[in-house]
Amino acid sequence: MLSKGQILEALSHVNDPELHRSLTDLKMVRDLQVRGGKVKVTITLTVPNCPLKDQIESDVRAAIAALPEVKQVSVKLTSMTDEERKALFGEPKEGAAAQYNHINRVVAVMSGKGGVGKSLVTGLLATALAREGYQVGVLDADITGPSIPMLFGLHRPVEPGPVGIRPLQSRTGIKVISMNFLLASEDQPVIWRGPLIGKAITQLWGDVMWGDLDYLLVDLPPGTSDASLTTMQSLPVNGIVMVTTPQSLAVMIVRKAVHMAQVVKIPILGVVENMAYFVCPDTGKQHLIFGPSHVSEVMLTASAPLLAQLPIDPQVATLCDAGKVETVTLAETPALLKAFIEAVPVAERRAT
Amino acid sequence: MLSKGQILEALSHVNDPELHRSLTDLKMVRDLQVRGGKVKVTITLTVPNCPLKDQIESDVRAAIAALPEVKQVSVKLTSMTDEERKALFGEPKEGAAAQYNHINRVVAVMSGKGGVGKSLVTGLLATALAREGYQVGVLDADITGPSIPMLFGLHRPVEPGPVGIRPLQSRTGIKVISMNFLLASEDQPVIWRGPLIGKAITQLWGDVMWGDLDYLLVDLPPGTSDASLTTMQSLPVNGIVMVTTPQSLAVMIVRKAVHMAQVVKIPILGVVENMAYFVCPDTGKQHLIFGPSHVSEVMLTASAPLLAQLPIDPQVATLCDAGKVETVTLAETPALLKAFIEAVPVAERRAT
Repeated sequence: MLSKGQILEALSHVNDPELHRSLTDLKMVRDLQVRGGKVKVTITLTVPNCPLKDQIESDVRAAIAALPEVKQVSVKLTSMTDEERKALFGEPKEGAAAQYNHINRVVAVMSGKGGVGKSLVTGLLATALAREGYQVGVLDADITGPSIPMLFGLHRPVEPGPVGIRPLQSRTGIKVISMNFLLASEDQPVIWRGPLIGKAITQLWGDVMWGDLDYLLVDLPPGTSDASLTTMQSLPVNGIVMVTTPQSLAVMIVRKAVHMAQVVKIPILGVVENMAYFVCPDTGKQHLIFGPSHVSEVMLTASAPLLAQLPIDPQVATLCDAGKVETVTLAETPALLKAFIEAVPVAERRAT
Repeated sequence: MLSKGQILEALSHVNDPELHRSLTDLKMVRDLQVRGGKVKVTITLTVPNCPLKDQIESDVRAAIAALPEVKQVSVKLTSMTDEERKALFGEPKEGAAAQYNHINRVVAVMSGKGGVGKSLVTGLLATALAREGYQVGVLDADITGPSIPMLFGLHRPVEPGPVGIRPLQSRTGIKVISMNFLLASEDQPVIWRGPLIGKAITQLWGDVMWGDLDYLLVDLPPGTSDASLTTMQSLPVNGIVMVTTPQSLAVMIVRKAVHMAQVVKIPILGVVENMAYFVCPDTGKQHLIFGPSHVSEVMLTASAPLLAQLPIDPQVATLCDAGKVETVTLAETPALLKAFIEAVPVAERRAT
C-alpha cells in the first residue's frame, strides 16, 4: 500500500533547480497526507513568489504521480518564514550565492575607451549564444554608467532569492544583473569612489544567484581602474573580447587596455571593430565615418584575431534604445559567434 | 654716472613671467659689471632651458637700455643649481605651483557616458577661446583613457619648472596637461585604483605651472566616480558643460551625471549634443545615424540651455586623429563660443 515513506523517498530525488539540493533536504516538504490513492502535500518555497514555483510544483506532481497506486495529487505552495530560511541557510553573508553557482566560462568585454560599443557587442554575443542553446548571463560591471539594462529593456528592481539576489531574465532567457536594478531610480547617479565600485562588482558576482551558466559575459566600463582591476583580479575571467573603433584616438587607448590584460595575464580572445563604416541607404555606398580602420594595430598589439567588423547601423541604435538588442540582426553576427565559441569553448556543454 | 644701484633698481621691476616675482627678488641677477656705458650681467634662470628665457633676456635688455648713459648691454644666461633652487623655493612639495597660478574660470566638460565627444568639445572650445585672445588651459582629467594629447598632437614628455611641471603648449598657444605626458610610453596603461586617480587629478591642478589663465577646461572621463568627484570637490569648478549624443541610451547615463552635478551643487552651463546627424557627401541628405535627438530631455533635467548640436563629420575624425583639432572648422563653433562665454564670462579679462 502507498506509504508516506515512498512519497518522501520520491521527493528526495526532486531538486530545487537553483539550489541543487533536494526538497526534503531543504525541509520544503510539509503536511504530507495519504488517503487511499489521494496524496496531499504542502511545498514550502524558500522565498515568496519564487519564480521557479511552477517548475517545482510540476516536478513534485510528476514524482508523486509516477508512484504506483497514486490516483490524485494535490500540491499547496507556501513560503518559509525569515526564521526558517535563516535556520536553513544561516545569516545572509557576502558571497553566499557563489557556492550555488556553476559558471563554466567567464568572458570580459573590454575596451579602455568609452562609447565604442562594448555593451552592444556584449548584447549581440549573449543573444547569439542563447539562441544556440547556451545558458548565458550578463554581468554589467559599469557601475556608474550602465548601458545593459536599456539594451535589454530591463527596468524592474531585482528580487531577493534564498541565498542572494536573483538576476532578471531577458526576453530570450538571458540572466542579467546591473547596478541599475538596485537603484531607486535609473537616473540616480552612483557617486562612489573606487573601492566601493570594486566591492559592487564582487557582489554582482558572488551575491547573485546565477545558477548554471555556460557563459557569463562581463561588460566592463571604460578605463583601466577599479572596475577592470577588480573584475580581472577577483573573478575567474577566462578571456577578454577587446572592442575598438576605427579612430586612431580609440586605438591608442584600447592599446592601454590590451597592455593591462597582458600585465594581469588574461588572454585576449579576439578583437571586434565597431562603427567600422556606414552604408548610405540612398546610394548603398560605404562611408568611413570614423576614418580608415586601425584594427590591425590592435590585433598586433594583442596578438589576437579579428572576431568581427561591425557597421554603424541606425536601426541598431533604434533597437538598442527600444530595449530590443535581442532582435538586432547583423550579417556579421554568425561569424562573430562562431569565432567566439572557437576561441572560448565551454569545458562541458550543459544539457539544455 | 651710471651705477650698479641704478641697474639693480631697474631690474627689480622686471618680473619672471611665470612666478610674478622680480628677478632681483629671485636672486637671478649675478655678476653685474658696469664700465663706461657698457653693462654686462648674468641672469641665472631658475631651471635650464627655461622656455621663457628669450622673453626674460629681452625684458632685461630693455630695462637696462632704458637707463640714461647706457651704450651697450650684454646678457649671459646660466641656470641655478638644485641647491640654489631649493634655497629659493624650498623642497618640492605638493600643490606648490598652485600659489603662482591665477586661473579665472574653471569649467569641466562632462558626460557620464563615454565616447560622446567630451574631448572634441573641450578641444573646439579651447581653440575658439584661444582664437578670441583668451589665455586657455586644458587639464585632461581622464587619467586612464586620455584623448586630449592625440587631439592636440602633443606627445612630448613634460619638463620640470622651478615650482612644478610645465604644461605643454599647443600650436595655438593652449597650455595642455595630461597623464600621458608623464608616462614612459603613450600606450602604457595606468592600472590604478580610485584614490590614486583622484590624487593624480589634484596634482595636475596644483603641481602644474599654469600661470595666468582666463579659462581652464577640465576634460572629465566617463562615470561619476573618483575623477569626477575629485574634480568637483577639490578644484574650484565654476560650471559644467554637459555633452550628450542623440541615443536614449546615452541620455539615461548623462542624466546621472546631471544629477551628480546637482548633488555637488555645481551649475550646468549648457548642453552640447554631439553626433547629432551625418550629412551624406553624395546626396547632401541628413541621416540621424544615432536616432532622433533626445537632447531636450537632458536640457530639462539639467535646467540648462543648448549650447550646440554638432554633426558627425568624417573630416573632424581625421583631423583629430592627426592631432589637428585646432584646425577643425565647424559652422556651429562661433555660436557655441558665444553661448559659452555668455554662460561663464571671465571676471576680469586679462590683457593679451
